[in-house]
Amino acid sequence: MLQRYLPMLSWLNSYDRTAFSQDAIAAVIVTVMLIPQSLAYALLAGLPPQVGLYASILPLIVYALFASSRTLSVGPVAVISLMTAAAVGQLGLNTMEETVKAAMALAFISGLMLIVMGMLRLGMLANFLSHPVISGFITASGILIAASQLRHLLGIDASGHTLLDITSSLSAQWHLIHGPTLLMGASALTLLLLLRWQFKPMLIRLGCPPNAAQLLAKTGPVVAVIATGTITFLAGLEEIGIAVVGHIPAGLPSSSLPMFDQHIWQQLFVSALLISVIGFVESVSVAQTLAAKRRQHIHPNQELIGLGGANLASAVSGGFPVTGGFSRSVVNFDAGAHTPAAGLFTAIGIAIAALWLTPLLYFLPKATLAATIIVAVLSLLDFRAMQRTWHYSRSDFAAMFATIVMTLVYGVEIGISSGVSLSIVLFLHRTSRPHNAVVGRVPGTEHFRNVDRVVVETDTHILTIRVDESLYFANARYLEELVTKKVAANPAIKHLILMCPAVNWIDASALESLEAINQRLKDSGVSLHLSEIKGPVMDQLQRSDFLTQLTGRVFMSQYEAWCYLRHGPDGCQCGSA
Amino acid sequence: MLQRYLPMLSWLNSYDRTAFSQDAIAAVIVTVMLIPQSLAYALLAGLPPQVGLYASILPLIVYALFASSRTLSVGPVAVISLMTAAAVGQLGLNTMEETVKAAMALAFISGLMLIVMGMLRLGMLANFLSHPVISGFITASGILIAASQLRHLLGIDASGHTLLDITSSLSAQWHLIHGPTLLMGASALTLLLLLRWQFKPMLIRLGCPPNAAQLLAKTGPVVAVIATGTITFLAGLEEIGIAVVGHIPAGLPSSSLPMFDQHIWQQLFVSALLISVIGFVESVSVAQTLAAKRRQHIHPNQELIGLGGANLASAVSGGFPVTGGFSRSVVNFDAGAHTPAAGLFTAIGIAIAALWLTPLLYFLPKATLAATIIVAVLSLLDFRAMQRTWHYSRSDFAAMFATIVMTLVYGVEIGISSGVSLSIVLFLHRTSRPHNAVVGRVPGTEHFRNVDRVVVETDTHILTIRVDESLYFANARYLEELVTKKVAANPAIKHLILMCPAVNWIDASALESLEAINQRLKDSGVSLHLSEIKGPVMDQLQRSDFLTQLTGRVFMSQYEAWCYLRHGPDGCQCGSA
Repeated sequence: MLQRYLPMLSWLNSYDRTAFSQDAIAAVIVTVMLIPQSLAYALLAGLPPQVGLYASILPLIVYALFASSRTLSVGPVAVISLMTAAAVGQLGLNTMEETVKAAMALAFISGLMLIVMGMLRLGMLANFLSHPVISGFITASGILIAASQLRHLLGIDASGHTLLDITSSLSAQWHLIHGPTLLMGASALTLLLLLRWQFKPMLIRLGCPPNAAQLLAKTGPVVAVIATGTITFLAGLEEIGIAVVGHIPAGLPSSSLPMFDQHIWQQLFVSALLISVIGFVESVSVAQTLAAKRRQHIHPNQELIGLGGANLASAVSGGFPVTGGFSRSVVNFDAGAHTPAAGLFTAIGIAIAALWLTPLLYFLPKATLAATIIVAVLSLLDFRAMQRTWHYSRSDFAAMFATIVMTLVYGVEIGISSGVSLSIVLFLHRTSRPHNAVVGRVPGTEHFRNVDRVVVETDTHILTIRVDESLYFANARYLEELVTKKVAANPAIKHLILMCPAVNWIDASALESLEAINQRLKDSGVSLHLSEIKGPVMDQLQRSDFLTQLTGRVFMSQYEAWCYLRHGPDGCQCGSA
Repeated sequence: MLQRYLPMLSWLNSYDRTAFSQDAIAAVIVTVMLIPQSLAYALLAGLPPQVGLYASILPLIVYALFASSRTLSVGPVAVISLMTAAAVGQLGLNTMEETVKAAMALAFISGLMLIVMGMLRLGMLANFLSHPVISGFITASGILIAASQLRHLLGIDASGHTLLDITSSLSAQWHLIHGPTLLMGASALTLLLLLRWQFKPMLIRLGCPPNAAQLLAKTGPVVAVIATGTITFLAGLEEIGIAVVGHIPAGLPSSSLPMFDQHIWQQLFVSALLISVIGFVESVSVAQTLAAKRRQHIHPNQELIGLGGANLASAVSGGFPVTGGFSRSVVNFDAGAHTPAAGLFTAIGIAIAALWLTPLLYFLPKATLAATIIVAVLSLLDFRAMQRTWHYSRSDFAAMFATIVMTLVYGVEIGISSGVSLSIVLFLHRTSRPHNAVVGRVPGTEHFRNVDRVVVETDTHILTIRVDESLYFANARYLEELVTKKVAANPAIKHLILMCPAVNWIDASALESLEAINQRLKDSGVSLHLSEIKGPVMDQLQRSDFLTQLTGRVFMSQYEAWCYLRHGPDGCQCGSA
């Protein structure tokens, strides 16, 4: 029990030297990868670079203590950073100090929400995000992120949170493009892409074991950072106008408090909710994929607590919203991390960087960080998923496409909200016209099949309609219409049987409709019968007075109904198969 | 075809003297009932009384031409008037002229929406309103309407669109209650209640045929109007401060245009949508109930066109949003109306009243109109429905209760929106944890039943899980969890069969989950099989490459799967029942 709520107890007992060395090696590799990534994502969120480092210290420690995933690595991630930029940007704050405090407040609210969701076991909220919506959202976010970084590559001051804003802002300043910055950015981009595509095969050719080559290839950004930083320093490129990261205050975050302002909190509420849900969904799917590889298990509600704690920790230590990142978690896993202690050691690594390495980052060009981000988000763009979804289901594709278009045109929040709304509307729409069939008896058997597909036995006085969906508010009126039409088309019938083998639920709206159907059929001299009602549904119906009003009977099987209505109470011996 | 879009063609051909006299009699009775009702609902909507009359002329004519219902009577109704008051009230307009033009704009937007919905065949949108939500909304609106009219009975100037606003406003002015107005209001209320409860039995005792007595009893408001108006006139009660309707400009509405202001239209958009949907749902359910009594049929999408036309007509003739009213339609039906011509004749009757009868209404006390409204909304309060819903389904009750509370506390728009949202969330929540069972073979048969309920045959190497719900985004992750748990609990299994007789749909999210399950089971050396997949679902799966990845097979029947996996390809002869 205690182990469930403090998952660290499950691994701390058996923690030994082997586990320590595995975790420590993984931590070193993740730390090296995380330093440029943290700086870059802070830049993407519109915050000073050190905020990225701060968000990668205390949150990792808190997550290690509370989370159920052994290998998930939390910290700033691209999509959440983009959402942070949009959320904080809408506030119209004047100073960077206020902006940082607002980002901290966003992490605070998001942390509270995640913890509350975890305690109320509301992990199911994530179910509202269908796979096509998430996939579309991530792809569109990747495009937005890449577009937003172009300004750093071009050395101009464009901004915006939608593709339209960004492109119009860029094109208005096209003539201001700063040549040297563009050259630096293009070089960094080329270097990163070369490292990404060529480094691993090259290392393998040089005799490096494939596994190590795989990990070393992930350090490409570090290579690019060191190379461009050194060149900028040696050639004095700052003086010809190449923007650099500049002075980063050394030291650990001072424990400043996030902004507590009722008005700001109200404005951030929806953003925080979206950030929480998106962060949670991404995090849990990464964690589950990794856990499955080692037959471990993830408790989604415990993950909510872990991520919530990490965000609260980020909020009180000068950071911004964090979640589990895909690429860093994979690196952590591949590098051999076996317990959350690897996260603790990574936090120590980043803390060392924040204390002593920041002067080395002074000459790091912002264009290099932008190039790092652009290369990182390339892996977010999944156009094949669009094609696959188009083939599989047009309505899923519609939800995905709407999410992409709305995200690009109106920004992340409207994008994800419209995707979720549309997927729910499409689902309700689909179930609002349930599949149904008039059925007849397959001669000589107890089976009943669609009269339009199979040669079956029917009776002019008996009409059986099989409905293949639970009956609830969205299809209640359709059912009324359906019965009215079928009865009008078969004037000779005396008995109507609703065959319900796939009806898992009848809600109060559908009950009203069944009552209306029963009453209307009664007025036209037709009895209504039900067959193959499932146990739980029958229990449900018995709590209303529908069964006493019902003009006909409820039959366990359709065959029983058929025999009884054709041959009377003793009819069931008539034609047993 | 043409008849479908101009339903009047279906009755105009056979229109004869009998039909004419039936419709004319009904029209006279409805007109008499409609005059005080129109004035009262205009008052409720916060508009001048003549607006109520205007909304009962042209809209009736247009509806008669386009609607598919033979006997529905349209015009101002209580709930829509309340919603109009809330929608127009939020605009903060200064003059009554502007307020009227905004109400006309609301009718215009609502009319456009209804017509567009009709042309796009979006009548299904009404399905989002579950029965408990509508029922709760109507009850709460009835309470709000009654509360809002208290000020006219008390002679004070309280206002507000939520129960809290109204009661606090009333209690703040408690000392200002105007004695004579209260006396007049209380008398009118008593008279109306007496007429409502005693008039019909009294008439029957006096030898009046029950049917005629029923209709005459509906004219109670007219009696009250004449009685209190005459007393006010004769006793000069206006001079002691009893508020009267006062001067109503005589004549037909001048064809003024509604307000065309982009900003106002944006603010009215959501209100207009809610008014359209609520009005449509109420109207169609009344129309269907009446049509069923005479074996007629309603085309919901044609009704949208009819109601839309009526609202556009109201908007260009000085009126406000209208819809089909329950009580007036019942009166129209009971009075013998057989075709929409009755609506045309009623429009003529109201036009005559607007032209020549308005001076007679000068001394009509507002307290009488308020009493009329209060008595009319008593029939909206349905507390028994709450009790019935509570017994039938807790989640339906939760949606109903939330609608009532939110409507009373935050007003009509937030009330209905939260009810709709909650009912959708509860539905998704329910389907997110589908009913499922591990099943085994009932010995000697081809049937498979829940191992927890029935003594069945099982196999240590084969686990069969039956899932009783379509698989889609809301339950995809649950399915993954379910399979993981069941497999972990049965370490000896080699084959997992998902039995899908009640799965009507597998969306892209669920497909991803099935792929993940297949992959994870493969990693643990377990094959995944599917049985009893329905035809349309199989067609769907064939459009993905899931079936080629599947480690096991797809079986038509569960029995076939059982025999095959136990005894190999020839196993199906093994134990045929």
